Amino acid sequence: LARIALDAMGGDFAPDAAIAGALQAVLELAPEHTLQLVGPTNVIRERVSALSTGDLAAAAALADRLEVIEAPDVIEMSDKPTAALRSKPNSSMVVGLRLQTEGRSDAFISAGNTGAQMAASTVLLKLHTGLTRPAIATLFPTSRQPMVVLDSGANVDCSAQELVQFARLGAVYAEDVLGRHNPIVGLLSIGEESEKGNAVVKEANQLLRNAGVNFQGNIEGRDLPAGGSDRGPIDVVVCDGFVGNVVLKFYEAIGPMMMGMLQKHGVDPSTLRIALKHLDYSEYGGAPLLGVRGVSVISHGKSSPRAIKNAIKLAAKTVETRMIEHIGRRLGETNGNAGAPA
Amino acid sequence: LARIALDAMGGDFAPDAAIAGALQAVLELAPEHTLQLVGPTNVIRERVSALSTGDLAAAAALADRLEVIEAPDVIEMSDKPTAALRSKPNSSMVVGLRLQTEGRSDAFISAGNTGAQMAASTVLLKLHTGLTRPAIATLFPTSRQPMVVLDSGANVDCSAQELVQFARLGAVYAEDVLGRHNPIVGLLSIGEESEKGNAVVKEANQLLRNAGVNFQGNIEGRDLPAGGSDRGPIDVVVCDGFVGNVVLKFYEAIGPMMMGMLQKHGVDPSTLRIALKHLDYSEYGGAPLLGVRGVSVISHGKSSPRAIKNAIKLAAKTVETRMIEHIGRRLGETNGNAGAPA
Repeated sequence: LARIALDAMGGDFAPDAAIAGALQAVLELAPEHTLQLVGPTNVIRERVSALSTGDLAAAAALADRLEVIEAPDVIEMSDKPTAALRSKPNSSMVVGLRLQTEGRSDAFISAGNTGAQMAASTVLLKLHTGLTRPAIATLFPTSRQPMVVLDSGANVDCSAQELVQFARLGAVYAEDVLGRHNPIVGLLSIGEESEKGNAVVKEANQLLRNAGVNFQGNIEGRDLPAGGSDRGPIDVVVCDGFVGNVVLKFYEAIGPMMMGMLQKHGVDPSTLRIALKHLDYSEYGGAPLLGVRGVSVISHGKSSPRAIKNAIKLAAKTVETRMIEHIGRRLGETNGNAGAPA
Repeated sequence: LARIALDAMGGDFAPDAAIAGALQAVLELAPEHTLQLVGPTNVIRERVSALSTGDLAAAAALADRLEVIEAPDVIEMSDKPTAALRSKPNSSMVVGLRLQTEGRSDAFISAGNTGAQMAASTVLLKLHTGLTRPAIATLFPTSRQPMVVLDSGANVDCSAQELVQFARLGAVYAEDVLGRHNPIVGLLSIGEESEKGNAVVKEANQLLRNAGVNFQGNIEGRDLPAGGSDRGPIDVVVCDGFVGNVVLKFYEAIGPMMMGMLQKHGVDPSTLRIALKHLDYSEYGGAPLLGVRGVSVISHGKSSPRAIKNAIKLAAKTVETRMIEHIGRRLGETNGNAGAPA
């Protein structure tokens, strides 16, 4: 049973993309899961009925699985993260995350202000014992199978110890959500040899050998599209959030650019869409912020209803597999209440 | 008049790729340019005659434009750069670069051991006054026009001051070799705003405002395939060699990966090749090591004859435009002998 809260007001196409995504998700999710739409109640109710036509009418009928939670304020994309948390305690972001601290919800998803979501998640859900920072874990399409890349933007200057923590977090995520057994971890660098890389990466390469993860060594930029090297596939790619964010945004942009070039040369657009479908980010819907004692899924600001639906499914999976509890255990927490923030 | 030395023994397909590339270049280059093939004389002569069939026979006839320079040793890909310089003073790499210090040559190209080429270029050609490091300047195909990305792998941990030097070096390269007037410089970061980035990038953003370059501000990973943002095109992208190398290798790998996916879905391979032709790295042939007082072009180890030919043309262009002199001037050298190492 997962109770998944969704920031109805987050993202460039809010509230409609969020609400339509939630309605689609209700139809597809196992019946024990419920959704909580967080935002101004009147706006949400109005949009739910407006969007409840065709297939979605059936979803709206499942009213007992779709709760509306009142939150009058909205944190805008332009708001300063930390200031917004303080000045807007009744925003959909803060209210939605607080549901978890109150034990009323199991996961939160937003396509809104990412900085505010990171700050609010860290402050409200708190970090697992021993962690200094959370990390955004993005699923990265490859020609083999998706990889987890983290950190993909939460942290810019990371220590080697923090990269090791990212490896542990990513390994649990790959195990629980992607179903990878004993996931293989690669460290993103500029050469396979352990002495290649910047100072932090070289130190992390040494630390990862005794970090309790299945560490394969360094991988290079060229191994990313292939999902691994000739030494085998990779499940988790560890890097700092600066490199991770640059690579991620580059990757997001390159598919459409190539599509455009190929269409100009007469390649049929529908063939292109089918061929490159698995490079489509909305397939994954969102990236969890790992390291906090709760589930906080960050969706792209431009998320479509389909992306939101997939983010909801991802969140459900993290709850079903008890990922947060597993992360706590992997990090050596022994107080038994990891995943149930006070 | 450019005298261009080519390491005949460097690269995975040496000596044939180098020699065939040189023969093709002789046919296409303006007649005032000459080539110097550096390596074991007997091997080179034997391969020149073996490869001189068909179109290339005409090239071989131009013997006065194709000099062979004896260098019995070869630095292997597996050799440690600095050790190899000392232990193999008669290698094609060292002999080829030394031609410039002796005033007998204007440029050097190798597809061999990159680390050794960087070390040998720095030691033999010396750095321009005020520089602490050289940078590899790679041409990056985009959907607009190629950009210069530097550093793309020579330096892993860079200071903000070094990033500023890279901006100056890259601007002269873009001006002279790409013909860009007052080239626009972007700093690779994780957000457009000047306060986004890691500590070094944030400091560099401030320094670049008064660095005598046409600085547009931060750019993001998503701006790379497009060759700029909605604020306009970019000519020079500045980043440290860790990020630059990861992005470059990622880019090199993604074209073939997408080609493979599209072919699987029945898209005609020849259409793909034509459409994605300008993403082909051999189009550019090589990346100069900027910052040294001479021309040292680094080619990919897997360079084809065509890539070598294009590297030779690039080297010729740097000599024709007196790029090294311009770099010296831009860096404030006033001794008038920049580009003519002692």
